[in-house]
Amino acid sequence: MPENQALAINGVKLGSTAAAIKYEDRNDLLVMEIDAGASVSAVFTRNAFCAAPVVLSRRNLSQTTPRYLIINSGNANAGTGESGLRSAQCCCDAVAEHAGVSANQVLPFSTGVIGEALPIDKIVGSIPAALDALSESGWSDAAHAIMTTDTVAKLESASFRIGDCDYRVTGIAKGSGMIHPNMATMLAFIATDAPVSRDMLDDCLSLLVEDSFNAITVDGDTSTNDACVLIATGSDKAQLIDRRDARFEQLLSGLATVFKRLARRIAEDAEGATKLLEIEVKDAKSIQEARDIAYTVALSPLVKTAAFASDPNWGRILAAVGRAPVKNMDVGKINIYLGETCIVRAGGVDDNYTEEAGQKEMAASTIRITIEMGRGTARKLILSSDLSYDYVKINAEYRT
Amino acid sequence: MPENQALAINGVKLGSTAAAIKYEDRNDLLVMEIDAGASVSAVFTRNAFCAAPVVLSRRNLSQTTPRYLIINSGNANAGTGESGLRSAQCCCDAVAEHAGVSANQVLPFSTGVIGEALPIDKIVGSIPAALDALSESGWSDAAHAIMTTDTVAKLESASFRIGDCDYRVTGIAKGSGMIHPNMATMLAFIATDAPVSRDMLDDCLSLLVEDSFNAITVDGDTSTNDACVLIATGSDKAQLIDRRDARFEQLLSGLATVFKRLARRIAEDAEGATKLLEIEVKDAKSIQEARDIAYTVALSPLVKTAAFASDPNWGRILAAVGRAPVKNMDVGKINIYLGETCIVRAGGVDDNYTEEAGQKEMAASTIRITIEMGRGTARKLILSSDLSYDYVKINAEYRT
Repeated sequence: MPENQALAINGVKLGSTAAAIKYEDRNDLLVMEIDAGASVSAVFTRNAFCAAPVVLSRRNLSQTTPRYLIINSGNANAGTGESGLRSAQCCCDAVAEHAGVSANQVLPFSTGVIGEALPIDKIVGSIPAALDALSESGWSDAAHAIMTTDTVAKLESASFRIGDCDYRVTGIAKGSGMIHPNMATMLAFIATDAPVSRDMLDDCLSLLVEDSFNAITVDGDTSTNDACVLIATGSDKAQLIDRRDARFEQLLSGLATVFKRLARRIAEDAEGATKLLEIEVKDAKSIQEARDIAYTVALSPLVKTAAFASDPNWGRILAAVGRAPVKNMDVGKINIYLGETCIVRAGGVDDNYTEEAGQKEMAASTIRITIEMGRGTARKLILSSDLSYDYVKINAEYRT
Repeated sequence: MPENQALAINGVKLGSTAAAIKYEDRNDLLVMEIDAGASVSAVFTRNAFCAAPVVLSRRNLSQTTPRYLIINSGNANAGTGESGLRSAQCCCDAVAEHAGVSANQVLPFSTGVIGEALPIDKIVGSIPAALDALSESGWSDAAHAIMTTDTVAKLESASFRIGDCDYRVTGIAKGSGMIHPNMATMLAFIATDAPVSRDMLDDCLSLLVEDSFNAITVDGDTSTNDACVLIATGSDKAQLIDRRDARFEQLLSGLATVFKRLARRIAEDAEGATKLLEIEVKDAKSIQEARDIAYTVALSPLVKTAAFASDPNWGRILAAVGRAPVKNMDVGKINIYLGETCIVRAGGVDDNYTEEAGQKEMAASTIRITIEMGRGTARKLILSSDLSYDYVKINAEYRT
């Protein structure tokens, strides 16, 4: 969407500023202010070496309802041990002092290089400027401030209806490399003005990430800093969504649009990517089976380099399906499609398949690979990207 | 080893010829003749979409003792359905007819592009020439004939002693891409003149592949055609190794040298590789845990691109360890070393670590990463390679 069309969310203000943490001449520090009375839910990386801000955010969120989020790009504050925890705490303390809340009402988030000390003085010194900049129309600036290797800012907005009431949802996300969310991806902050209880917001978030941020992969590398935050600011008690009824379903589908669009934009902006891969597994025995097969194909370097070359080397897709961690695969029942073109039928190359047809499908900028397992009803769609020279370039040159 | 120093193995002859299957001006067809009375054992890919020759070899091996192996490069005969099975059978029939054995005494092997019809006429027409070329000194030619994207032929030889007897072992292997053996890698044929019963040879092979061909990875892509064959030609009944005693152990350690050297040479010759990565996990709770962690690091595109750039971006190693599929990881007990340099101690960056020390370790052509889990005695060493521009180039251009 055009960045200036982000819908403001009543009860959420965003302020960005330049703290020169790693980048010059751009904003790299964001503070989000959330009205008292809002519900806030979050999911975090499952990486065992999770970053200091993740540890602190998890703890603070379990103690009270957050009023402020502080997010910096350029430094992940991960692999930094005890001093990293103290640095993250310093950020919270500084925001709390300026804003007049308690320190555990502040959640810290960081993204960038792992293993370097957070430049605390720069961040603390820039917090007043970020607070001064707080505005309901700060979404677009915020989307830019949290970028690292991203090439485009990721901002999405939608409106939806629950019963007779109209609501809005707006979110930002960042992520381009080290993307293989085991929970949520890198950083995403999404807010709605619908009134939702904390419990229902938690349910909502875990259902939504499953088919959005948890369904994309760039390189299989789960970050130490992944976090996704969902904020609901609505205060109309009469409309409060506090149980899983039809209105909860409407809320889900209203928010899903923004979750899925943001996730797709991360996959599209994958490091070095020239193509988007949509890997869909259908008719599988279970969701787990569908997911395992889809991820095996989505992560195969051979499939990803073939996509980069627009080469219909479908043997690589077949080989990837065949090595997926699934028991008793019945290859005789498997069909595989490239776009609309059937390449494998009942386990062997389709009689009508031609190299020309395959070539045409692979030339598209979005390549859809559909795998029919023929033994159930479960399905899963995973978004991935191709593996290009630029992926190697970006990751061989980043940091140095 | 210098190729001309391959030790001949009594009872095994090799004949190579040029059948112009895919490559011009080089040998691409190999026939191996095994004396009657030898024991032959083999392990094959676990890829569900295994190639036609794998299906046939498995079946023939279960029926009788092989006398001939026929191996072609340039075409994998995989993803070729029923007609692929008929093609593989044709190869066996032709060898059987010329050599005067039954067709199920011939095992077929193919490696190369997936999904193209095997050029049967070319192969069958070249079998007499391959048989004419049979010689005990054919190992070096054979190592060349089975190459595909390999840049060097892989041939290893050793002698060893069991009790008072001296024996020899010689083997060839090929493999450079689509390497992540789930059983054995691509193709390897190893022969010894020690006398070993078929049962003991099976035991021997499954133990040996575990720390050789099953302990390397290039791209995580398990081939449809992986096969490893072990032949024991010794006929001295008095010395026959037919139980797991001290002599069996001597046999194992004698053969292990060649298995490990061949596996290492495949990792060294990984597509586009400029560095060899040795990933060792120590003090783990179980072998499975050690293997899971080692493979997660070994396959991480971010670790592999950092290696390519000689960049001591150790945060990527830590992040990969953290996302390994291992329960209740205690990061506070984990130490990580780059060569001799400790980078992470007790879960955080080591106090004495310097960027200069890390840089020096990463500049080496062989990079050893050691991960100490601090909670057991299990260990696993996995060999991998870096991810370079050339990996993308080779795989974006292969076939087209």
